[in-house]
Amino acid sequence: MKPSSISRRFFGGLFGAVCALALSSLPVMAQDGAAPDPLASWNDGAAKQAITDFVRDTTTAGKPTFVPPAERIATFDQDGTLWVSHPIYTQVVYCLERVPAVVAQRPELRNVEPFKTVLSGDRAAIARLSTKDLEKILAATLSGMSVEDFNADAAAWIARAKHPRFDRLYTDLVYQPMLELLGYLRANGYKTYIVTGGGQDFVRVYSERVYGIPPEQVVGSAGGTKFGYRPDGTPFLTKEPKLLLNDNNAGKPEGIHLMIGRRPMAAFGNSTGDRQMLEYTTAGPGARLGMLILHDDGPREFAYGPARGLPDTRIGTFPQALYDEAGKRGWVVVSMKNDWKRIFAFER
Amino acid sequence: MKPSSISRRFFGGLFGAVCALALSSLPVMAQDGAAPDPLASWNDGAAKQAITDFVRDTTTAGKPTFVPPAERIATFDQDGTLWVSHPIYTQVVYCLERVPAVVAQRPELRNVEPFKTVLSGDRAAIARLSTKDLEKILAATLSGMSVEDFNADAAAWIARAKHPRFDRLYTDLVYQPMLELLGYLRANGYKTYIVTGGGQDFVRVYSERVYGIPPEQVVGSAGGTKFGYRPDGTPFLTKEPKLLLNDNNAGKPEGIHLMIGRRPMAAFGNSTGDRQMLEYTTAGPGARLGMLILHDDGPREFAYGPARGLPDTRIGTFPQALYDEAGKRGWVVVSMKNDWKRIFAFER
Repeated sequence: MKPSSISRRFFGGLFGAVCALALSSLPVMAQDGAAPDPLASWNDGAAKQAITDFVRDTTTAGKPTFVPPAERIATFDQDGTLWVSHPIYTQVVYCLERVPAVVAQRPELRNVEPFKTVLSGDRAAIARLSTKDLEKILAATLSGMSVEDFNADAAAWIARAKHPRFDRLYTDLVYQPMLELLGYLRANGYKTYIVTGGGQDFVRVYSERVYGIPPEQVVGSAGGTKFGYRPDGTPFLTKEPKLLLNDNNAGKPEGIHLMIGRRPMAAFGNSTGDRQMLEYTTAGPGARLGMLILHDDGPREFAYGPARGLPDTRIGTFPQALYDEAGKRGWVVVSMKNDWKRIFAFER
Repeated sequence: MKPSSISRRFFGGLFGAVCALALSSLPVMAQDGAAPDPLASWNDGAAKQAITDFVRDTTTAGKPTFVPPAERIATFDQDGTLWVSHPIYTQVVYCLERVPAVVAQRPELRNVEPFKTVLSGDRAAIARLSTKDLEKILAATLSGMSVEDFNADAAAWIARAKHPRFDRLYTDLVYQPMLELLGYLRANGYKTYIVTGGGQDFVRVYSERVYGIPPEQVVGSAGGTKFGYRPDGTPFLTKEPKLLLNDNNAGKPEGIHLMIGRRPMAAFGNSTGDRQMLEYTTAGPGARLGMLILHDDGPREFAYGPARGLPDTRIGTFPQALYDEAGKRGWVVVSMKNDWKRIFAFER
């Protein structure tokens, strides 16, 4: 379904009313001339209320829950939390599409699995590749080049690659309510970080442009680099296939300690890969905020995992236990269908 | 020698003249009412000029060497560059003094070297411990506790531990000209980072208070942590004896890529451990600044390494080749004796 038809179906009747609001992504000015709502794409409800309560509690001087600006850290998972990750992680698409270039440089891989399957172009066979196969592909396609060459290649790819369903750039498929949330937290003195299971170097290529998050505030799965010299003595770094940080599950709080060195005040995720990050965050004293984004909006985005009674998909695990834990620990589950007025900036 | 006698010897004759300036650490107001000099503790000369030229070239809009604020990154070694590291690295003192507490918890170490020697209190024997011995001591004293317990212990120690020669807190032995340089760069939109061979977690305990550098802008040698749960289900991180990043030599640019993800515009160091960081920094395009602090002021601080014709000491290696390279690559060598009006804030 094309986005224009999605928009018509869901927003058609309201077109006149929302037209003025939707014309730009500027904050929406309330009709009575009050300050614009920084969370204009969030419907009123428990989720939006939890966010504004948390910010009020941690930024109001004199409150026992007040947090000094230097300690205001908020961490966001990326895939499925800030942008679309269905049906396949964007970075995996990048790696699959890089296989021909890698094989051109290393012809010995041409008839070796899983590279042979990827080169065959057989989509069904590619979809059946195991996690172990994908790891081999990631290692081969994300190492061996200089840091600058990688950045240039990833930047060129992300500037042209489109999501098959939406026929839009992946970077257009960021969630407008989450962009507003990032901006709202920053306007209240929070330093916003991405803490992703995806590749740190990959996300850093576009994080500033797309999320307003500079490279040094992106924590992700990270390979080592190796310092060396070109024949003329110029030093450079080569990306190595050695994994330094697997920034998933327990690796998220461990990565947060390594890269940030403080416990976040707020954390946002959507799958079991984010569980320990939310646990670590919300176990701290004072006011804390933990949120899980629930993908329950098939027409506008996707319904998968718990929304379809499936604890596991290729893009994460979403067991009932995670939602039971959310209830127990006071995490807020955000329904994309009910809590978000619009999902993408391009919706009209 | 006590600091008061050092002060008298070197500043006695000038006491009246400098009294007004030295009364506080506020910037010095020029006599003609011009703006205060942000680098008041630097003597006029090539080093100070290189700093102000670099800042002018990278922050003046329209210049071909202009650098957008987001890319203004400056990295500083700590030991010997921001504070005194002679005759022994401060963190090594901390680890040596922690040995009795570790042995109390692990009595099996009592008669095992190098712990036995440390417990003996024999200073000459302790001074002869090998680097391998020191590594064993660091691993044993910096792991096995929760991150919070470590932070509390290190914070309590650094609040009381004093340097034997100056009889002052180690945190009073930061170089005033470097504090001014950090502030000057920050006032010009630079994000200042510490990139230390010392322990990242240790430096993070006091970096904000002492240098105005928040924990997340400290890159250092880093051990892993392990996420786990207390019996009541509360999650916590335990420091592990596993080394993730040896942030020395080639490890410095590798650590910068891992933790910052951008090539610095300026880098400051004092020994071969900083060589690759300076090489990597100054190999980038545009205006770059590389600086080496030369410890050539025995009376006010220490003269060691090249100032005494010794390429190696227990606190670093300073071969002639490093200074030859500085000349070749355009790095500026800062003479503490000649370029710094005063070294410590407490000098009068």
